[in-house]
Amino acid sequence: MCAQAARSVRMPAEWAQHEGCLMAWPYRSELWSGLLSDAQDEYAAVARAVAAFEPVLMVTAPGTAAEVRGRFTGERAAHEIEVVELPLDDSWTRDSGPIFVHDETGRRFGADFRFNAWGGKHWPYDSDDKLAALVLDRLGVERLHSGMVLEGGAITVDGEGTLITTEQCLLHPNRNPRADRAGIEAELSRMLGIEKVIWLPYGGLEDTETDGHVDGVAAYIAPGRVVVSLPDDENHPDYARMRANLAVLEATRDAKGRKLDIVVLPQTAYGHADGRSVEVGYLNFYLPNGGCVVPVAGRTEDEEVAEALAKAMPERKVVPVVAPTLAFGGGGVHCITQQIPMELR
Amino acid sequence: MCAQAARSVRMPAEWAQHEGCLMAWPYRSELWSGLLSDAQDEYAAVARAVAAFEPVLMVTAPGTAAEVRGRFTGERAAHEIEVVELPLDDSWTRDSGPIFVHDETGRRFGADFRFNAWGGKHWPYDSDDKLAALVLDRLGVERLHSGMVLEGGAITVDGEGTLITTEQCLLHPNRNPRADRAGIEAELSRMLGIEKVIWLPYGGLEDTETDGHVDGVAAYIAPGRVVVSLPDDENHPDYARMRANLAVLEATRDAKGRKLDIVVLPQTAYGHADGRSVEVGYLNFYLPNGGCVVPVAGRTEDEEVAEALAKAMPERKVVPVVAPTLAFGGGGVHCITQQIPMELR
Repeated sequence: MCAQAARSVRMPAEWAQHEGCLMAWPYRSELWSGLLSDAQDEYAAVARAVAAFEPVLMVTAPGTAAEVRGRFTGERAAHEIEVVELPLDDSWTRDSGPIFVHDETGRRFGADFRFNAWGGKHWPYDSDDKLAALVLDRLGVERLHSGMVLEGGAITVDGEGTLITTEQCLLHPNRNPRADRAGIEAELSRMLGIEKVIWLPYGGLEDTETDGHVDGVAAYIAPGRVVVSLPDDENHPDYARMRANLAVLEATRDAKGRKLDIVVLPQTAYGHADGRSVEVGYLNFYLPNGGCVVPVAGRTEDEEVAEALAKAMPERKVVPVVAPTLAFGGGGVHCITQQIPMELR
Repeated sequence: MCAQAARSVRMPAEWAQHEGCLMAWPYRSELWSGLLSDAQDEYAAVARAVAAFEPVLMVTAPGTAAEVRGRFTGERAAHEIEVVELPLDDSWTRDSGPIFVHDETGRRFGADFRFNAWGGKHWPYDSDDKLAALVLDRLGVERLHSGMVLEGGAITVDGEGTLITTEQCLLHPNRNPRADRAGIEAELSRMLGIEKVIWLPYGGLEDTETDGHVDGVAAYIAPGRVVVSLPDDENHPDYARMRANLAVLEATRDAKGRKLDIVVLPQTAYGHADGRSVEVGYLNFYLPNGGCVVPVAGRTEDEEVAEALAKAMPERKVVPVVAPTLAFGGGGVHCITQQIPMELR
């Protein structure tokens, strides 16, 4: 199934009710530098945390489903973790999975952008490029194709026509070298119903894996309300960059003409992955139905962040998952999840 | 179980994730002037609409559970409709049920205000006054008691410290004759964590059954965003009253210091209950997880309202239920439902 987006569609916000959450199981040891087993433990912990709020659809490579199912057998979660086999390269469904949209009637479609492994940083990536189409087939959701390279981690939306992204990533020549700002905005409008793009200058400086995805530095949590990160230390290399982002957010208005209400969160804390020190980014949380699953470093600073998030989203249960290995791999909870919103008709 | 509210608690907004929805089954024919069977059909339609989004806990009078269960047997809903017997007088759980709150840790409590059948308009009402305590016992949720008379339909909250009510109802001498505005605000603060009460002057003029509940004229749908009703006809007796309400909302700020974003909806349409013409109020919708179940008159004007609600809440599926008999009985969908929010710890 593949249709052109002649119809008018829009990407719902992450807080819209979900039917479930799409994840993929990590299995290629060469991608995890000896930490595959730790990574699998953290993926499993995230899946369990999400399944307390909504069903999880876990994609795993052919021949590995029995082993993955075995991990969750006998556990009692509020919702099911369904394991299905599909060809995979890597395991970051935020970026390789479909981006779900609704048309005017509330019918769901799956936006399928091209995926090139964050500008060709890993190879092969053809299975991950095809993943969205296979998942949509399985769910019986019609596919809308785009020739643009886009990862879900590069955008955050309010569901009402506004999208926030970073120039560092979306204008990077390793993604869409022949596209300019206007061309990218037009395609975001066509595929995701975006009327206003807010361009932040920067992602995280150290976020070289994704070239500065917005989901490391800013996240919509309600219409008109954005959480952004700011290092505590003014000498941190990201401090001036995040200040520049803040200035843009404070000066802008969204598609509805609203000023933004901005919640500032500490950026990161240092955790340990197999003895290596890694910066765990707090901004990379995921919002399952009624929850907020946030990656933490396993340090006392985590408490303050969990409290700040609970205050910013009083209607959600904040669940921290210690995830230094995900950080080592270049991401966090948001990067390895992708919401499957409910059909609204 | 009954504790005093020494702890700090807060009522979550209706859009916070629910564990389910509390309803009660109508069974006393003298309350429905010969329309009991039609009323039961509409209650069943509302229960089915809600069960598409979340579980329903349907309370019914002793000896009637088998009959009520029979109504839903063999139907396939996304969620269960559980039927349990408890003593009942009437069937408006928005007003007779508990009002759920969370403490700082996210633990749930049930605020149990006194219920006197809207200022003694029907008798007996002692079973309905005791309903909240029995429901809380059944759910294993600790009870917080208040000596104040308050119905859930008299308030709408943003979950962040703001509550909107009407002077017409909350200051009516048939509820709390010895309490003044400051005393009521203090009790709303203690029991529901309210920091700012926005007093609208008026409910609906014809809403004599509840003395002008706010859930006939205004409803919070997001932090800082309120839907209000306004008759299309400037000669409608409520037109000037709703204009006065609008002026208050436009001039005020909420507990967080925000101006309110106000969405105006047509107030009512005329429907027919057993040949009698009744005004069906559109404002009396309920927000189950991911949905908006709205009472409608069964007329073409309904379409416009459903579209306006879908535009105001693009992340929700709007489901109209034709409910002239509920309107004849003095209410709508919101009046016969009560959200049971998730525990957040």
